[in-house]
Amino acid sequence: MSDAFQLHPIGWIRKPENAVRIDIDPAFQDGLLGLEGFSHIIVCYWFHENDNSRDRHRLQVHPRKNPLNPLTGVFATHAPVRPNLLGISTCRVISVSGTTIHIDAIDARNDTPVIDIKCYIPDKLKPSEIRLPAWISSQ
Amino acid sequence: MSDAFQLHPIGWIRKPENAVRIDIDPAFQDGLLGLEGFSHIIVCYWFHENDNSRDRHRLQVHPRKNPLNPLTGVFATHAPVRPNLLGISTCRVISVSGTTIHIDAIDARNDTPVIDIKCYIPDKLKPSEIRLPAWISSQ
Repeated sequence: MSDAFQLHPIGWIRKPENAVRIDIDPAFQDGLLGLEGFSHIIVCYWFHENDNSRDRHRLQVHPRKNPLNPLTGVFATHAPVRPNLLGISTCRVISVSGTTIHIDAIDARNDTPVIDIKCYIPDKLKPSEIRLPAWISSQ
Repeated sequence: MSDAFQLHPIGWIRKPENAVRIDIDPAFQDGLLGLEGFSHIIVCYWFHENDNSRDRHRLQVHPRKNPLNPLTGVFATHAPVRPNLLGISTCRVISVSGTTIHIDAIDARNDTPVIDIKCYIPDKLKPSEIRLPAWISSQ
């Protein structure tokens, strides 16, 4: 087995009723300077509920848990089972206040550990450059 | 300190002359099934050269190493110093052959460990929804 790297949560996703926010560990508050200048952020989190040997060894899935979708390698999906349980979502920032980032929505569960946040910068790809398989474009 | 999570490389970025490729650990080859259906992938890697206490405690930088850019929290940048040394790039796939993914380019060094790959699905944000700070749009 190759060398391992260590990740520590920098915050947690909280989903009280009618709201979604990221609570940043106060130790990392200085890392938020200037975040309010962006409309969107990339939230990187850890699928902690799947942090077990079985889910980390799953290499193929039917995307979106739909058996009609073809069996697909996890690296060709965003499935929450994969060798390293990294999830990525682009989220709209509603406000930043102290160590709290209010966002519009995220497809991750309450108490999910957040491992990184990056500013969202739009890519410059033209639609004609992008190719997707049928299981994506048919849904 | 909160619980730590373990990451293991699933491959490595190789940059021989005039080419860029990702060599996937053969143990994870099954995870590539269907990847060739996508024109682009999101490559997640580890800034391994910065995996030291000093760079993991840097919370503010002048983006793009330009002292004229305002001091900014690392979570509002893509800087290679941050508490968890995660890097993310969208790359064009040239070909997939066995455990080798040939890509057009990546802003990461030779031998960088790759920790995850995800399919690239374009977001549906309209330009009018996106707000960026001056240090991005001026460059």
